[in-house]
Amino acid sequence: VAIKAAGAKLVTVYDVAESAAAEVASQYGAVAAASLDEAIGHPEVEGVVIATSTPTHVELTLRVVDAGKMALCEKPLAPTYAECVHCIEQLGDRVGKVFLAFNRRFDPGHRGVWDRIAEGQIGAIEQLTITCRDPHPPPLDYIPVSGGLFRDMMIHDLDMVRWFLAEEPVLLYAQGGCIIDPEIGRLGDIDSAMVTMRTASNRLAVIVNSRRAAFGFDQRVEAFGSEGMLISDNLPATGIKRFGGVGQSMALDRWRTFYLERYGDSYRNEIEAFVTCVEQSRDAPVTARDGLFASYLAEAATYSYANNVPVALNDRAEIDWT
Amino acid sequence: VAIKAAGAKLVTVYDVAESAAAEVASQYGAVAAASLDEAIGHPEVEGVVIATSTPTHVELTLRVVDAGKMALCEKPLAPTYAECVHCIEQLGDRVGKVFLAFNRRFDPGHRGVWDRIAEGQIGAIEQLTITCRDPHPPPLDYIPVSGGLFRDMMIHDLDMVRWFLAEEPVLLYAQGGCIIDPEIGRLGDIDSAMVTMRTASNRLAVIVNSRRAAFGFDQRVEAFGSEGMLISDNLPATGIKRFGGVGQSMALDRWRTFYLERYGDSYRNEIEAFVTCVEQSRDAPVTARDGLFASYLAEAATYSYANNVPVALNDRAEIDWT
Amino acid sequence: VAIKAAGAKLVTVYDVAESAAAEVASQYGAVAAASLDEAIGHPEVEGVVIATSTPTHVELTLRVVDAGKMALCEKPLAPTYAECVHCIEQLGDRVGKVFLAFNRRFDPGHRGVWDRIAEGQIGAIEQLTITCRDPHPPPLDYIPVSGGLFRDMMIHDLDMVRWFLAEEPVLLYAQGGCIIDPEIGRLGDIDSAMVTMRTASNRLAVIVNSRRAAFGFDQRVEAFGSEGMLISDNLPATGIKRFGGVGQSMALDRWRTFYLERYGDSYRNEIEAFVTCVEQSRDAPVTARDGLFASYLAEAATYSYANNVPVALNDRAEIDWT
Amino acid sequence: VAIKAAGAKLVTVYDVAESAAAEVASQYGAVAAASLDEAIGHPEVEGVVIATSTPTHVELTLRVVDAGKMALCEKPLAPTYAECVHCIEQLGDRVGKVFLAFNRRFDPGHRGVWDRIAEGQIGAIEQLTITCRDPHPPPLDYIPVSGGLFRDMMIHDLDMVRWFLAEEPVLLYAQGGCIIDPEIGRLGDIDSAMVTMRTASNRLAVIVNSRRAAFGFDQRVEAFGSEGMLISDNLPATGIKRFGGVGQSMALDRWRTFYLERYGDSYRNEIEAFVTCVEQSRDAPVTARDGLFASYLAEAATYSYANNVPVALNDRAEIDWT
Repeated sequence: VAIKAAGAKLVTVYDVAESAAAEVASQYGAVAAASLDEAIGHPEVEGVVIATSTPTHVELTLRVVDAGKMALCEKPLAPTYAECVHCIEQLGDRVGKVFLAFNRRFDPGHRGVWDRIAEGQIGAIEQLTITCRDPHPPPLDYIPVSGGLFRDMMIHDLDMVRWFLAEEPVLLYAQGGCIIDPEIGRLGDIDSAMVTMRTASNRLAVIVNSRRAAFGFDQRVEAFGSEGMLISDNLPATGIKRFGGVGQSMALDRWRTFYLERYGDSYRNEIEAFVTCVEQSRDAPVTARDGLFASYLAEAATYSYANNVPVALNDRAEIDWT
Repeated sequence: VAIKAAGAKLVTVYDVAESAAAEVASQYGAVAAASLDEAIGHPEVEGVVIATSTPTHVELTLRVVDAGKMALCEKPLAPTYAECVHCIEQLGDRVGKVFLAFNRRFDPGHRGVWDRIAEGQIGAIEQLTITCRDPHPPPLDYIPVSGGLFRDMMIHDLDMVRWFLAEEPVLLYAQGGCIIDPEIGRLGDIDSAMVTMRTASNRLAVIVNSRRAAFGFDQRVEAFGSEGMLISDNLPATGIKRFGGVGQSMALDRWRTFYLERYGDSYRNEIEAFVTCVEQSRDAPVTARDGLFASYLAEAATYSYANNVPVALNDRAEIDWT
Repeated sequence: VAIKAAGAKLVTVYDVAESAAAEVASQYGAVAAASLDEAIGHPEVEGVVIATSTPTHVELTLRVVDAGKMALCEKPLAPTYAECVHCIEQLGDRVGKVFLAFNRRFDPGHRGVWDRIAEGQIGAIEQLTITCRDPHPPPLDYIPVSGGLFRDMMIHDLDMVRWFLAEEPVLLYAQGGCIIDPEIGRLGDIDSAMVTMRTASNRLAVIVNSRRAAFGFDQRVEAFGSEGMLISDNLPATGIKRFGGVGQSMALDRWRTFYLERYGDSYRNEIEAFVTCVEQSRDAPVTARDGLFASYLAEAATYSYANNVPVALNDRAEIDWT
Repeated sequence: VAIKAAGAKLVTVYDVAESAAAEVASQYGAVAAASLDEAIGHPEVEGVVIATSTPTHVELTLRVVDAGKMALCEKPLAPTYAECVHCIEQLGDRVGKVFLAFNRRFDPGHRGVWDRIAEGQIGAIEQLTITCRDPHPPPLDYIPVSGGLFRDMMIHDLDMVRWFLAEEPVLLYAQGGCIIDPEIGRLGDIDSAMVTMRTASNRLAVIVNSRRAAFGFDQRVEAFGSEGMLISDNLPATGIKRFGGVGQSMALDRWRTFYLERYGDSYRNEIEAFVTCVEQSRDAPVTARDGLFASYLAEAATYSYANNVPVALNDRAEIDWT
């Protein structure tokens, strides 16, 4: 649906589960491909959306790009940092042919703040506060395969730090712990974290993460600059305001609690941006290299938390975390 | 698109301009009908959307209902009050088969306020303030055929007064004038108005209308009750907040300025409600009778303004405005 | 206290209850006067605050002004319109020596809106919506001596209409009724009202009054102009925001419910403005003439409501309401 | 003035500058004391406000408490942590006789959030975000004697972390830098900082400090708990809202920019709380021990930043920072 809205056409669908591919294809007027090669090689196909499990991302991405086409790859680029590095090496100067799906860069609120900073509305950015809390923790059986909070949940925010600060962080320190559900701790992960970063010019950033917010999505970006501040705040479901009895004041309508209600627009905008890149043979605005760097920061945060040490970062991603 | 979303299917399209019908039909997988009878009589057609010019509404509506089908008729029901009365007489006990398209009853904000009043959140309603301002006046050549501000623009708000107060007004007084564009005055209309109403139990309502608001749509409903107040307020385009320099404080993002951006959801919800009625053979939640009453109030306001007198209303619509 | 803050000094206090005068005087380092003449005639006294019951206002005001001093007179100027006219006639060109205590003109919010309109921030004013609701009705035994809702409560708002529109209304119509407490109705008054007005250039205003608001003071001014809108909105007691569980969204802190908590600043500012006028021998910014006009509008509203007719106004206050 | 408001009386004033003491004394109906001993020993004096330069705090505080009276001591308790320890040792079990003037604990917004947490409105607290930015950096010549950002500015926030989390932090890490004015850096200080902390039960806190905010005071507390969130947000000067032209949306009134405008209420409330303690012979709600702990955290932050290491804290304040 979103692809159609963006002015493109769904040509073919491939899935290891053949019937699933057939069903989706028929629903959108496309045909199911008999093999991956057939799908990628289809002469009408110009761009490929890779929405598979993480371990397959690198191989599929490389196949698409080797076929001379553009890929929209779900985040993260790869399950491990080493595989990210491998992917980048294989891509070489074709890194821009991979559009990495950091959808929050396409959220109207977050994007709007970024645009206004770029227009100079708050002068030079000095401090960034990203608060990201989800309505509920993921199912417990997902925890052991998630890679941990930093790689699974915070990776979006780590990418946004790079994007908003417009300068690579050089220092990172992570604190966190398990306070929501001790079961998450027993499975080896944490459910709450705060990570601070600093760039060479002393821009500071903090990310506040929690796996649960009683009132729904709490996803905010606050950019403080030399001449003002911009906030991408939570937006209530409607403009309804309720004035109650004495002591109850005024309450807004409920916050958004369903994933697509909160981020539906960002997905639509992301697909549109991808289609535009394909049409105009342009490099992606967010590439495999951004995927590499976000993974790098997630590794650094994981290491920092595990060892309780600040981590010096470099922008060439040469560090060895093993 | 909206019809599909609602779980229904577009069967056929009729337009006096044959090529237009053919184009729309092919776009949505339907067929163009050769005649109105063919369209209405098509065995698969269960409900008919009438989106034609106002003078054709009554005739088409009656043909649809006579064919045993349900009609979604664009507002107003008819160009004159007399024709509304005629339509209601012809419909008899089939008045509920006509779903009158007062889309604001399906706006998530306005509807949400209504639902919360029905739940008893503010006790008994006592005062209603409806503010309705459009971004721009209509084109000047539309003014002479519009029927005037009360019939063309305020009719939505007059319908909402009946809907929110849950009691018919018994007294109405209209004030207004031309202050935005003297050209509108020369064409015999006004561009600004305030109308007050009272019900038998002393519920009071005021409608504030302006044909132009510099900042975009300004469309609010404020319901004040014995135990609180509910407001359906304007909602900014995003949750962006900008903090400027000294004296500049904090600004929200821009208001909505495009019609579909402001009311798109209400149209989708309206179609869904229509489809549900058709599926379940239920009477419409807003019928031709509501269309009659809103037109009645618009006549009363037009008369009140023209003669500078309060108008006593009755709920049997017997008054003769000629 | 406020007088001291304004840079003036309390010289003497007179009250028919001698002990009350003595107590207040000693508390603020002043002396009690043995008679009204002594108080008004005291050589150090330059300005006199008249905070007595309404029937005494005119006589006291005239005595102060006759003594060559300036008076701050509580609203209303007189219990009846005829007495207002008499007072104005007696004052002649000394009308500016009477500072009429319409304290809302000195409320930081309402005043701030007025200042910004004067600066041209919203272009030419076109529509004014004043909402004024008190937390509780007055004691029932006050109702019969209050003069009625229009003269007692709405008079502040009627004054603000003149002040904000910067043009005298030429047409007024009042609707209202008793819906909060039938006892108020039995005592001959109403508890809810809406009054619309129009000026010669088609500026429109509406005042919405209620004697009770479950959530505290609801006192707002909304000025709509050709280039924007300014609202003096309710301000919560603090900046506290509470985010609750699912469906509860965000609530502000409670509204202000105590008179001085809501309007304390306006009284302080009013006294300061009065002291400044006295010091600089300047005419009051709001004079006995404004008191006359507000009373005139209150009479018009009372008459309009009682007779259910629109009232044509003129700015020379020649009408005879008897 | 505030003291009077709190129901107490200013008895005597002592200042090394005799004329200053005399002036203040006469202004408030008190007498100037000839010596410190006379002032502290005055039989009517029950409580003493110590508003002197920091190096004199400990000595004066001890003299007041030794005289059997209660002291309100300006923050910080002492210029160095060692002196704080010395003071606490000397006080012994009289620590509660020293009311340490952390005024933000008495700000209606911050305090209101604390009270609501204590009432259980958001369940158990899990994360705390304190943002504290001042309108302007202090004069440059103050920087070298200030003790540095952590001891001078952040000490308020460090105290609030202890107060809100209701549990001592066990781990602290500070990041910061100079980005506003390089001159501050040349004088050996920083102007921007972020400090994260963790308690034994994994409550997390972050403090965001900046010496300058273009739009005025930016002083917020955000407490996130298992069942909701409470924010003490900035409150605009009035309830004025401005709706501008297209794209300009709605702007609040300016933020507070003058110290007393922002924190005047907190000083009044603090004095009232002190007077109540004196009257009822109760220990202070915030004591010299809180002063010690805040200084301890400021030392830890200074050390952490200087050495780029996380600092393990203990709640007995035994660490040696030399």
